[in-house]
Formats: sequence, C-alpha cells, structure tokens
Amino acid sequence: MPWVPTSRCILITRGAELDQIAMVVKVYGEARAVCPQRVIHCLVEKGVPFELVHVELDSMEQKRPEFMEKQPFGQVPYVVDGEFELFESRAIARYYASKYADYGPSLLGRTVEERAKVEQWMDVEAMNYNPVAFSIVWNAFILPARGLARKEEKAAAAARKLEAILEVYEKQLAKSRYLAGDEFTLADLTHIPATRYVVENCDMAHVMEGKQHLKAWWDNITARPGWKKVMEFVETGANKHQP
Amino acid sequence: MPWVPTSRCILITRGAELDQIAMVVKVYGEARAVCPQRVIHCLVEKGVPFELVHVELDSMEQKRPEFMEKQPFGQVPYVVDGEFELFESRAIARYYASKYADYGPSLLGRTVEERAKVEQWMDVEAMNYNPVAFSIVWNAFILPARGLARKEEKAAAAARKLEAILEVYEKQLAKSRYLAGDEFTLADLTHIPATRYVVENCDMAHVMEGKQHLKAWWDNITARPGWKKVMEFVETGANKHQP
Ligand SMILES: N[C@@H](CCC(=O)N[C@@H](CS)C(=O)NCC(=O)O)C(=O)O
Ligand SMILES: N[C@@H](CCC(=O)N[C@@H](CS)C(=O)NCC(=O)O)C(=O)O
Repeated sequence: MPWVPTSRCILITRGAELDQIAMVVKVYGEARAVCPQRVIHCLVEKGVPFELVHVELDSMEQKRPEFMEKQPFGQVPYVVDGEFELFESRAIARYYASKYADYGPSLLGRTVEERAKVEQWMDVEAMNYNPVAFSIVWNAFILPARGLARKEEKAAAAARKLEAILEVYEKQLAKSRYLAGDEFTLADLTHIPATRYVVENCDMAHVMEGKQHLKAWWDNITARPGWKKVMEFVETGANKHQP
Repeated sequence: MPWVPTSRCILITRGAELDQIAMVVKVYGEARAVCPQRVIHCLVEKGVPFELVHVELDSMEQKRPEFMEKQPFGQVPYVVDGEFELFESRAIARYYASKYADYGPSLLGRTVEERAKVEQWMDVEAMNYNPVAFSIVWNAFILPARGLARKEEKAAAAARKLEAILEVYEKQLAKSRYLAGDEFTLADLTHIPATRYVVENCDMAHVMEGKQHLKAWWDNITARPGWKKVMEFVETGANKHQP
C-alpha cells in the first residue's frame, strides 16, 4: 500500500455537515520548469500525493497580482498545503524531506552532521552551480527555442565555469557515492533538473567527459524511479500524483 | 555563567598522557569579509567559543592548495570543529543553530513549519538579495577601495533591483516583526553583513527610505549585542571569542 500522509486528512465544517477531506498538496508551477521539478521530485520520492496547478510562464501568469500575493517575486513554484503556504523550491524540498523524514529515502541525512553536509552541497548547488547551469540553458537552449540566436560565447564561457565546478564534484564523488555521503539526498536531487537541460538540450554532454565518478553519479541519480516519474509529468502533461 | 558546550571537550591520548582539550571551533576567514561574519555572528548568538584563523584575502591565501583542500572553491569561510569540517557560511550557521537549538535564541524556528519559513527567506537572501547587494558593494565600495573607479551605472542598476526586493521585505515586515515570523532567526541574521556594507559604505542608505518597517527591522537587528560583538572583531582585530 503506498503511503498517504494522514496528517493531511482534516475535518472541515461545511454548513452543518462534516466532510473528511484529504488535503492534497498543490504545487503551482509548470512541469517543464526546473524549479518546480525539484519540488515534484522530492514529493514523489517521499510518496506525498500532490496536484500540479499549471502556471503558464510564456503568458506571464506568474506576474499577475493574485500570483504575486503568494510568490512575491513572481516566480514558480509555490505550494499550498492546507493552511500552510511556502515558496522557494529548495525550502519546499527541505520542508517535505524533514516533515516526512521517516518515510522513503532520508533526503536530509540522519544526524546534524549529515544534514550539515547536505546543506553545504545544497548551498553550492544554489549559489555556484545553478547560476552557471542556468546561463548555459538560457544562452544555448531557451533563446534558440524562442527563435532567437544561440549566444555561443556566453554559453561557452559558462560551460568553462561549469567544468571547473564539476572538477570539484568529481573529486568529491571519488570519495563518496553521493555528494553528501553514501546516500541519495537533496544535495543530489536539487542538481538534476538544470543538469538534465544542460546535458540533453544544450549540446554540452562533453562537460562530463573524462569524469568517471561524476558520470556514474549522473547515470545513477537519473535512473531513480522518482526522477522518471518527474519526466512522465513533463511528457504526459499529467497533473496529479497519487502514489 | 556563560554556556560552554561540553560536547567539545574530548579526551585525546598524547603518548601515555591523557589531556582534556577544550575543542574550540576554528573559523577560517577574515573578520571584515561578509561570509565569515555570518558564521561569527551565529556562533556569538549561540554562545559558542571560537577562534578566528586569519586568511588574508588580499594576498590570495584562499587560493593556496592547502586551503583549497578544505574549501575547494577557494573562498572563506570554513570551520574545523574537532574531526568535523564544513564550508558554506549559511550551511555552517544552520549547523550550529541546529546543534545548539536549545541554547540562546531559536535561530531556526521551533516547528518544521517555522523552520520552513526561515529556509524560505534564507533562500531569498542567498539567491535574490545577496547577488544584488554584492554587486553594489563591489562596484561602489570595493573597486574604489582598491584605487579603481567606482562603477556608478552598475551600482545604480543593482540599487534599483535591491529596492524592488526591499519593497517585498517592507510588505513582509509589516506583517511580522522579523522576516520569518515574530522571532529573530537566521533569515534575518544572514542579511546583516552585506546590508551593513550597502548602507554604511556605498552611499546607499536611501534604499531604506520610505520603508518604515524595514528601517525599524534594520535598527532592531543591528542593535543586537551579538552583532555588536562581530563589529568588535572587525575593529579590534580580536581572534578569540570566549562567551
Ligand atoms: N529561487 C527560486 C527561483 C524560482 C525561479 O527562478 N523560477 C523560474 C522557473 S524555474 C520562473 O518562475 N521563471 C519565470 C520568471 O522568472 O518570470 C526557486 O528556487 O524557487
Ligand atoms: N557561498 C559561499 C561564498 C563564499 C565567498 O564568496 N567568500 C568570499 C568572502 S565573503 C571570498 O572568499 N572571496 C574571495 C575569493 O572569492 O577569492 C559562502 O557563503 O560561504
């Protein structure tokens, strides 16, 4: 039996009548966007049912006032979970990983020290890795996809920076199977969405060449059923997940 | 009696002799640098004794091989705490806030939901606020301090972006006394070092004008004895903290 978090089943008074409503997490975003993918992947790994509420980025739905009441910077994702609301993809992932610590993979480590290492590599992802990966995706994929010219020089400059970061990763992954230790955690998970675009859509697969531990890590983490489920969301346009 | 964490007192065998060594956290960095200040401030708030090991950024000590063994991106800070080592200023702050959760102010909230809000605003600081604040400090302060021309246009463009972010903060701080709720947390603490440079060294105090809740928050969080202690480190060149 797949696990359904019971804390989400709350009693709501509707007039005189009492209904038991299974509160399902609502994720506002677009399945193909990198940041919502982090959240979706985390929820799938943890076996949390959710609904994806489509926010059309191309038509700028994320800048509408009613959206910006929830995410004041006008970006996806944010989640609504009963009375609780949260934005920032990594903060959301941490929240569910920690709320459902005992279900599924231990995405934040088991001790304060283990969590600290997870946080260290998550910060590296957020501040070193992601801006560089984003620059590649922007200049080599998003611009051409919008009918504009690929910005070759900018993409190449970002790729060189990425390779320097990946050399650090290669060293780390020679020491431990995953970035933060011997278990898959949010430190790995948060890297997947942007890296997939870099590797698959930007003609940049070469950034992993000659880095055997990195390559093995990449193959391993993208083979997870949880990640495949995320890709299914993108491909099928599904909007509900019921583990 | 100031609190001294006893878990740091370990027994080490030195030849036949047993010495009780009080392990003091070693923070590698420079007191005037923004990122080490986050760590120092957190340790002071938590009453954790530490020693600051000076790393001379001007002479590029942070790029030496023995340094990069510890912080592979060649940046400060990193900490050594007995056998445990960690880099990334915000990950370090989270670690001590969580390890010593019961001592001093509750810097990460008291429930998973409270922590989630702290994480949300910490992520906003790391990814939205800090890059913009850093650009101001770089173009309006660091360059001139190195005898180069102040880059007026770049600083002004960053200042406009900062003001847009601060409008979001003003709205939030009208709802709660601190960013993540009614208590001072890492969400506030992580903002202080870069903001102080913006306000005091870049002729940018106007970014807070007309934002009364923001201004009250800023006055409040910088009046904390913990932050004053950080400034003392910068001004006196002290390298030890024994609460
Ligand atoms: N730090 C935020 C960044 C959110 C973000 O950049 N979202 C992108 C999609 S991946 C977006 O909404 N882009 C549209 C826009 O900025 O208008 C998070 O991780 O949630
Ligand atoms: N994300 C890292 C950034 C570290 C960082 O940028 N450190 C600066 C000082 S605040 C530094 O070492 N600068 C010198 C350099 O980059 O060579 C952290 O928060 O620890």
